[in-house]
Amino acid sequence: MPSKAALIVGAGDATGGAIARAFAREGYATCVTRRQADKLAPLVAQIESAGGIAHAFGSDARKEDEVVALVERIEREVGPIEVLVFNIGANVPESILTETARKYYKVWEMACFAGFLNAREVAKRMMARPLPTGGQRGTILFTGATASLRGSARFAAFSGAKAALRALAQSMARELGPEGIHVAHPVIDGGIDTEFIRTQFPERYALKAQDGILNPEHIAAQYVMLHRQPRDAWTHELDLRPWIEKF
Amino acid sequence: MPSKAALIVGAGDATGGAIARAFAREGYATCVTRRQADKLAPLVAQIESAGGIAHAFGSDARKEDEVVALVERIEREVGPIEVLVFNIGANVPESILTETARKYYKVWEMACFAGFLNAREVAKRMMARPLPTGGQRGTILFTGATASLRGSARFAAFSGAKAALRALAQSMARELGPEGIHVAHPVIDGGIDTEFIRTQFPERYALKAQDGILNPEHIAAQYVMLHRQPRDAWTHELDLRPWIEKF
Amino acid sequence: MPSKAALIVGAGDATGGAIARAFAREGYATCVTRRQADKLAPLVAQIESAGGIAHAFGSDARKEDEVVALVERIEREVGPIEVLVFNIGANVPESILTETARKYYKVWEMACFAGFLNAREVAKRMMARPLPTGGQRGTILFTGATASLRGSARFAAFSGAKAALRALAQSMARELGPEGIHVAHPVIDGGIDTEFIRTQFPERYALKAQDGILNPEHIAAQYVMLHRQPRDAWTHELDLRPWIEKF
Amino acid sequence: MPSKAALIVGAGDATGGAIARAFAREGYATCVTRRQADKLAPLVAQIESAGGIAHAFGSDARKEDEVVALVERIEREVGPIEVLVFNIGANVPESILTETARKYYKVWEMACFAGFLNAREVAKRMMARPLPTGGQRGTILFTGATASLRGSARFAAFSGAKAALRALAQSMARELGPEGIHVAHPVIDGGIDTEFIRTQFPERYALKAQDGILNPEHIAAQYVMLHRQPRDAWTHELDLRPWIEKF
Repeated sequence: MPSKAALIVGAGDATGGAIARAFAREGYATCVTRRQADKLAPLVAQIESAGGIAHAFGSDARKEDEVVALVERIEREVGPIEVLVFNIGANVPESILTETARKYYKVWEMACFAGFLNAREVAKRMMARPLPTGGQRGTILFTGATASLRGSARFAAFSGAKAALRALAQSMARELGPEGIHVAHPVIDGGIDTEFIRTQFPERYALKAQDGILNPEHIAAQYVMLHRQPRDAWTHELDLRPWIEKF
Repeated sequence: MPSKAALIVGAGDATGGAIARAFAREGYATCVTRRQADKLAPLVAQIESAGGIAHAFGSDARKEDEVVALVERIEREVGPIEVLVFNIGANVPESILTETARKYYKVWEMACFAGFLNAREVAKRMMARPLPTGGQRGTILFTGATASLRGSARFAAFSGAKAALRALAQSMARELGPEGIHVAHPVIDGGIDTEFIRTQFPERYALKAQDGILNPEHIAAQYVMLHRQPRDAWTHELDLRPWIEKF
Repeated sequence: MPSKAALIVGAGDATGGAIARAFAREGYATCVTRRQADKLAPLVAQIESAGGIAHAFGSDARKEDEVVALVERIEREVGPIEVLVFNIGANVPESILTETARKYYKVWEMACFAGFLNAREVAKRMMARPLPTGGQRGTILFTGATASLRGSARFAAFSGAKAALRALAQSMARELGPEGIHVAHPVIDGGIDTEFIRTQFPERYALKAQDGILNPEHIAAQYVMLHRQPRDAWTHELDLRPWIEKF
Repeated sequence: MPSKAALIVGAGDATGGAIARAFAREGYATCVTRRQADKLAPLVAQIESAGGIAHAFGSDARKEDEVVALVERIEREVGPIEVLVFNIGANVPESILTETARKYYKVWEMACFAGFLNAREVAKRMMARPLPTGGQRGTILFTGATASLRGSARFAAFSGAKAALRALAQSMARELGPEGIHVAHPVIDGGIDTEFIRTQFPERYALKAQDGILNPEHIAAQYVMLHRQPRDAWTHELDLRPWIEKF
């Protein structure tokens, strides 16, 4: 019998890794992707050593044919995708006066267009299956950020992509919610305990001592919580923020 | 040794009752209030028969002296209040042309001013206690509604009160979050499975068969979830909505 | 023949005064109110010396009977009220821990409840008149602030009152817009060139040299602009902010 | 002496045409663009017969080299661009399940990416000029829509592009406002009196008889108003909506 699958697109960072581990603990055959599959080997090993099931796929989330092929392959080889988490997107601030067309496009392609491709392909598969009595067809989660809600100075590219991804999440929730697909958009507002923050923003990282940056495991627990919500009480959007973060 | 207390203001409806039972199951000495304490006897019995601790108090949540006395008495007789849930407020739509000053005032007094009084008194007590290492001083939860976000036609009084309550929640979160008090504002968007909906809106109630109205137990589970969030990943606002609800 | 009247509630500050002068220049018999009418004498003299019509009324905007009597008297003695501007409300920040119930109530009573009373009474009068062909029955403008949109720390009372006033504006716009009453809510985000800012916030006032605080005459011009909008293109909300203001 | 120029990108529809005529009446050498310049001949003739100055340019607003060349040419041949209006973008609703990658990309390219290219190029030119004493360097206006604020069902592509454009407007306002560039984002919420509405949505067009759709001339008047605002009282966002439109 095929396993139920959870697909984590953008599992290469600390947050995506924690989300993958969390859904593996929930019993999902967790499919993790990034452009180079071999970099995912440690994550797969981690999950397997904890008794979970994990599959790594090398795939460019921005290429329609690769996304179509990936979803097709997972559904055939692993099992029906019940959870999709789209977790790609990084910010490199730049003045609007010097922002390049190439970077503006790349940021959107990665943080928004790839989300559209993956979510559409997975939603098609979910919709092809019957709605379980009293249940749901599946869950699609998009990682949001403060920039999803607000265009700050020097954030034109990133906040544009994130705002567009949020609009996608809203549009899908309104169309597919009543079809039994739970679409949600958690908004992370704060630094996350990642290698990137540790090395690039040491002052921010120092806040970790007082729980001033987000623990990826705690973010992941919220993603699982959203997936587990009964269908009479679904959340579409929630913020996640360290207690001492200004907002 | 005194118990830790959870105070549920507005425990008279199905939602408040479910929240009280949920915090009792979490081990809190649950203090429930409404104007006439005797009407709370069934809820107290329910909690006690399930092995929980419950105390009913008759108190007018809009009267400063009664709120001060209530909080004082709970802290002295039951234990330190670690959780406050403010759950009062009901809507009776009316054209702005015929809305009375008396009703406009009463709706605000009940749904907002009472929230201010209770939250201030409890927050003072929480702030008087040391911040536990790695922990938090307590949680204050305000029940929000769609009207908290939007002033619909014929909703001037209710949406005014709910918008003001939301501003209170935001203001307290920004001031007291960094002091270790988790202030959150869940927004209920949909009909709730209550006696009121059952008798007054039978067509809406019929949606229950397909999980189209919210189960109070599921709302309550989210309140407990919010209280249990670790302090590096707090949610201030989330929506809760049946899967088939338009939004 | 009776004049058309514009009623400016809260004409005692620089903004209200400028709004009164602007509507007087538009040909309205401008009715200005504050608790003590004699303090309005300089404003009335200003308007009259510029060839305008002004009437000062002593009236407590928070007292229903006084508001009812005032509107009744203006309609009888001056003319039909075509414009209402509600411009009352001041902020005195305070920690939620030390905010008094009395002040919390007073701030709401002044900045929100008085708005409800005045807007309801004027709306009733407007609705009693026929809708002019191709035109509108009148305009009701509520002065908003940054606090209308956001509950900052130490702003629980003021942001609560302003958020409730905004909900009132939205509710009235949705109910009465299709009846031909234009309800709008300009949001002032920045310091205004007033005596209060000049004496209390000298550093902020110094920004005036580079147009960093709002000129009340420019705010007033926007109020007139909103009133003059043709009914196929009405604005409900707009922000007004100095060019160098952070937001 | 060179004229001051206003560049209207997307002048091919009724709204863009009205905006072009309005800025021509304000004395600007109005530069209008669309992919095929010859289609702009009637608009140019209209402006010229009214005594204004107009120049038509064939240019693909999505191609960086064409945008760079266009701005360069206008600045050299016509005069310094003081106003930019970006007014491109059309919606073709589609289920997320059947939306094509090609269309999703095209909608974004047209409604958002082209806005980025044009706004960046013009902003660079404005920033290269000194800030006039007491004045501003220029105005950049982006046409928004209801979809800019909300992702409705079947609007994933359009609302994504419009939300991203709004984020761009906010980001530019926050970075360039304090440099003297007024960036604003009027949000049109309702049908506009265009050939498209007349032929495709006759029921909606019938609302014209009661001013239920927006007159492009009235929209244009607001764009001029925004450009004329003194810098101590700038608006970043306002909505424009027929009086009978639901919102």
